[in-house]
Amino acid sequence: MSLANLTNHQIRLAARPVGMPKATDWSHTTEAVTEPADGGIVIKTLALSLDPAMRGWMNEGKSYIPPVGIGEVMRAGGVGKVIASKSDKFAVGDLVSATLGVQEYVTLTADEFKRNGIFKIDQRAGTVTQWLNVLGMPGMTGYFGLMDVGMPKAGETVVVSGAAGAVGQTVGQIAKLKGCRVVGIAGGAAKCDWVVKELGFDACIDYKAGPGAVRAGLKEHCPKGVDIYFDNVGGEILDDVLAKITRGARIIICGAISQYNNTTAVQGPKNYLSLLVNRARMEGIVVFDYADRYHLAVAEMAGYIREGKMKSKEDVVVGLQTFPDTLLKLFNGENFGKLVLEVAKD
Amino acid sequence: MSLANLTNHQIRLAARPVGMPKATDWSHTTEAVTEPADGGIVIKTLALSLDPAMRGWMNEGKSYIPPVGIGEVMRAGGVGKVIASKSDKFAVGDLVSATLGVQEYVTLTADEFKRNGIFKIDQRAGTVTQWLNVLGMPGMTGYFGLMDVGMPKAGETVVVSGAAGAVGQTVGQIAKLKGCRVVGIAGGAAKCDWVVKELGFDACIDYKAGPGAVRAGLKEHCPKGVDIYFDNVGGEILDDVLAKITRGARIIICGAISQYNNTTAVQGPKNYLSLLVNRARMEGIVVFDYADRYHLAVAEMAGYIREGKMKSKEDVVVGLQTFPDTLLKLFNGENFGKLVLEVAKD
Repeated sequence: MSLANLTNHQIRLAARPVGMPKATDWSHTTEAVTEPADGGIVIKTLALSLDPAMRGWMNEGKSYIPPVGIGEVMRAGGVGKVIASKSDKFAVGDLVSATLGVQEYVTLTADEFKRNGIFKIDQRAGTVTQWLNVLGMPGMTGYFGLMDVGMPKAGETVVVSGAAGAVGQTVGQIAKLKGCRVVGIAGGAAKCDWVVKELGFDACIDYKAGPGAVRAGLKEHCPKGVDIYFDNVGGEILDDVLAKITRGARIIICGAISQYNNTTAVQGPKNYLSLLVNRARMEGIVVFDYADRYHLAVAEMAGYIREGKMKSKEDVVVGLQTFPDTLLKLFNGENFGKLVLEVAKD
Repeated sequence: MSLANLTNHQIRLAARPVGMPKATDWSHTTEAVTEPADGGIVIKTLALSLDPAMRGWMNEGKSYIPPVGIGEVMRAGGVGKVIASKSDKFAVGDLVSATLGVQEYVTLTADEFKRNGIFKIDQRAGTVTQWLNVLGMPGMTGYFGLMDVGMPKAGETVVVSGAAGAVGQTVGQIAKLKGCRVVGIAGGAAKCDWVVKELGFDACIDYKAGPGAVRAGLKEHCPKGVDIYFDNVGGEILDDVLAKITRGARIIICGAISQYNNTTAVQGPKNYLSLLVNRARMEGIVVFDYADRYHLAVAEMAGYIREGKMKSKEDVVVGLQTFPDTLLKLFNGENFGKLVLEVAKD
């Protein structure tokens, strides 16, 4: 393949969004695809992972990774195919998981491999989209958040918000496999039905069913209280769960999608003193801390997939140029399953 | 001593306070002192411990212990002297720590001993008021909260609010003894001076010094951030500290005195997502969980007192009848040191 004939379409961050990202926060650019340096490679993007965390990367200020700079290609993880290689680590045709960015091609030097987090993926373990879902960053987040911070014991009640999302479906299915009672929280009857019927959760609460729906649902479905809460959403739902935790409960703070596009201050959990009364713990998790153990979790989950014990659902939208609109599906709760942007078939 | 001649003055909860407790929330009653049953004792109250937690006991609703019932003698721990005994466990003249209630005398049956938490105290280990302070419930709270939940390592930076209070002075002094850098937060220059000069804290921030004083003080005195925060106050100060925590920080939720008399909802920590970014933990502590290890902590702290390595300050107010007003000193920040109500000299 001659790289000279290829054009790389890119989407760059043009401005820091105030509230929900809008069209003018992005710029669409094109570049030539550059030849790899000695030891380097060129990757063609097949599919990108769209995640709530992206909203945080667009803000100025200190966080667990630096923000995306204005004018830079938007950061995104994904799966791609090596189309040119001067590396002995990657051959043309290899499928890789890497930080690709919202663009069609990326050229990496050997020096960049480690920081990029690139690794070869094995399609026998899962499909390209599964590698962005249960076998990818969301799956790792769910796995290590639940197991390392939540420390579930058989018989405990686990509640997970964003239950039909990428992290939520992993958390709930693993908790079931570990012998827990699992109650999801999701938006709409279709998601709730799927979570219960397809994934085998014990129950799922539709937070869109009306005021007080979460409180009533927790009362009905968690008669012994909530031992572990895996929080992807924050806001009122976090407060509702705090009011139902058991003594010694663990709350994993993975995200707060209800708060990411606030133009006012984040809503703090006004029921946080329930932590005191219940000698409970609220703890944050960042998946990158577990990178040296990803392979163990992938092996375990690939086994579950193979044995039919774990399912996954991806919501695949086609076309790089749809990125600005597609991203918003996450914040409107419109995605059903892990949101994936398909950039090329192969 | 003939019990028949004694009158027991008592203070009972007459109504559940809305906001700050007021005179009409209390009733003043008298009773005869009853003879002990077989195996029982009569205790004369010497001094009562006045604690922020009392405000919580006055509210209806689920907590770590049942609320004080309307019409009941207000719950209070204290030190008293056994003045009549039909027990082989306690002799007349013994000094005891017990749940005495806000009253001059209490008669206990043997069946009540365990639930009451009564135990003999040794005046060689500390004075009566020290037994309500560093050797008492506040000291135990500080000790186990810091050591078991905070898990301090030498060289770490520990911040404690309510630094001149009963729990705070214990936390800070133990943290210093464990090799930490210790920064207190207290109200007013006099308390701050005492905390630094007498207790040996590295610094103390006067939260009453004006808007932004805590933020500025943390920036100045915690250049490497906050590894452990022992929170007695909640509110804005908790948010200010959350903005300065280090990776892996531990926040011990011991109380939230700024919020106890709210007539509106508790102010939740709007910076709680700092727990996520910093993979940090916020955890509640209730001292009663550590009852089977109190003797170990008392032995350690009595050793520090004997060696001159630990000081304590009590703010002693005289007279049972002053209880309703004296309690308010806690919530106005007027007490300087552990607040003790002296009921009788001996």
